[in-house]
Amino acid sequence: MRIIRFLDEQNQIRSGHRRPDGSTTLLAGDPFERLEDSGEPASVRKLLAPVEPRTIFGIGLNYHQHATEFGAPVPQYPVVFAKNPASVAHPGDPIVLPPICMNPPEVDYEAELAVVIGRTARDVSAAGALDYVLGYTIGNDVSARRWQKHAGGGQWVRGKSFDTFCPLGPELVTPDEIPDPQSLPIACRLNGQCMQEGNTADMIFPVAELIAFLSSGTTLLPGTVILTGTPSGVGFARKPPVFLAPGDRVEVTIEPIGTLVSPVSGSAEQNSRTR
Amino acid sequence: MRIIRFLDEQNQIRSGHRRPDGSTTLLAGDPFERLEDSGEPASVRKLLAPVEPRTIFGIGLNYHQHATEFGAPVPQYPVVFAKNPASVAHPGDPIVLPPICMNPPEVDYEAELAVVIGRTARDVSAAGALDYVLGYTIGNDVSARRWQKHAGGGQWVRGKSFDTFCPLGPELVTPDEIPDPQSLPIACRLNGQCMQEGNTADMIFPVAELIAFLSSGTTLLPGTVILTGTPSGVGFARKPPVFLAPGDRVEVTIEPIGTLVSPVSGSAEQNSRTR
Repeated sequence: MRIIRFLDEQNQIRSGHRRPDGSTTLLAGDPFERLEDSGEPASVRKLLAPVEPRTIFGIGLNYHQHATEFGAPVPQYPVVFAKNPASVAHPGDPIVLPPICMNPPEVDYEAELAVVIGRTARDVSAAGALDYVLGYTIGNDVSARRWQKHAGGGQWVRGKSFDTFCPLGPELVTPDEIPDPQSLPIACRLNGQCMQEGNTADMIFPVAELIAFLSSGTTLLPGTVILTGTPSGVGFARKPPVFLAPGDRVEVTIEPIGTLVSPVSGSAEQNSRTR
Repeated sequence: MRIIRFLDEQNQIRSGHRRPDGSTTLLAGDPFERLEDSGEPASVRKLLAPVEPRTIFGIGLNYHQHATEFGAPVPQYPVVFAKNPASVAHPGDPIVLPPICMNPPEVDYEAELAVVIGRTARDVSAAGALDYVLGYTIGNDVSARRWQKHAGGGQWVRGKSFDTFCPLGPELVTPDEIPDPQSLPIACRLNGQCMQEGNTADMIFPVAELIAFLSSGTTLLPGTVILTGTPSGVGFARKPPVFLAPGDRVEVTIEPIGTLVSPVSGSAEQNSRTR
């Protein structure tokens, strides 16, 4: 099933079932317990990220070619960082460039498969790990490279936690429709030009192993989102480097999930928008 | 006011006002909105961590002497990492050593002042930052050193996110009782022996600057906990190194907040306890 979260005409947060014909029906219940299709047509005023993350873990350097372009050896274990859960941006909402990331420009895109944990997971084996997945969606692990590497004292959390630095969506696709998460084409286009093109088959640590690794001695709460790493082609590794600028448009596509679109704006635009 | 969170005789989660005479009265309301003392005596069956964190940010190398023992230069900006919010341990509950952190031993203590954010903070100035503090409590930023440094690919999140690696408590003390968070004696005792002894006056980045820094372009949600760094004397920097072992007892004291006690156990004990 394809699940969306949205605001209806009364600005209530609702869940919907996006049907193959493009229509949407209202879902009743709790996504982490049981959702039932009411059959009632849904009126979608604004699409939201399909989950409000409890926690966001990110995995660094998880595609062979990206580890190489980063100048890092293939890691022995998954490289784990975190993003502030308030960094989520809804589908179609802008990535807002903070003023402190503009001089010089440093904000980069990272197309990623996002995994949403559906029930409490601890010490799960890789063989059973996918049973804990509520669904898959698309993430963009937006990163301020100077804050990530140098200003952060080598720790990545600060540079990856700015507001809007985690676009998520548009749909959450349940595992019955994605029996093998390691065979999905993933791509990122910037202003229509293909910047990243890969396949989740190239992950160094597949999704099941990431869940097993993260849950070892550690409780993953329902609503935990795991961003599973990005393929090669990120902006800072290009010659010359490419960083996001106001007016840009980033599209991350993972077949068969869909396309996550994020325009890019400067913070002045945001300020005028929210005033 | 000194606020506790606890289970009552019916296993309901309640808030209480710990009075100067040691008695506790029930608080009604939402800690993030308004709490009112009912005057009714409280029956405390089990003390809980005073907050269920929305997010846990940690600050590395934030005391001059600890940066030195870590072999790191004094950082130009705060070094930010995160801990899994499910890593919290209640006052008196054990720090459970995961089997994958036992061969060789590597789990270390870090006495820390914990700051709880009370209302949404974004782009706040250092001058106004303390207005966003709900209260102060004590934290122990328990860290698996091998996972933190080497196995984690240099990222600290994995080695600091094991369950029970974030003891918090016992009381949340509101800012009216701690007008200056930069003058608090802080100490850690291991089996009665003083291992860390410092003062929050030695912080490289004071609490107000940490909040301003973290909130720059980034929304800090109510319930965000900031662990503000640890003074010198941690186990791995000692000669010979000292790591936690089953049967140990760690006590972190910050005047005037109190003492956070954590026994240490192996995971076998935990398994038999929860079965």
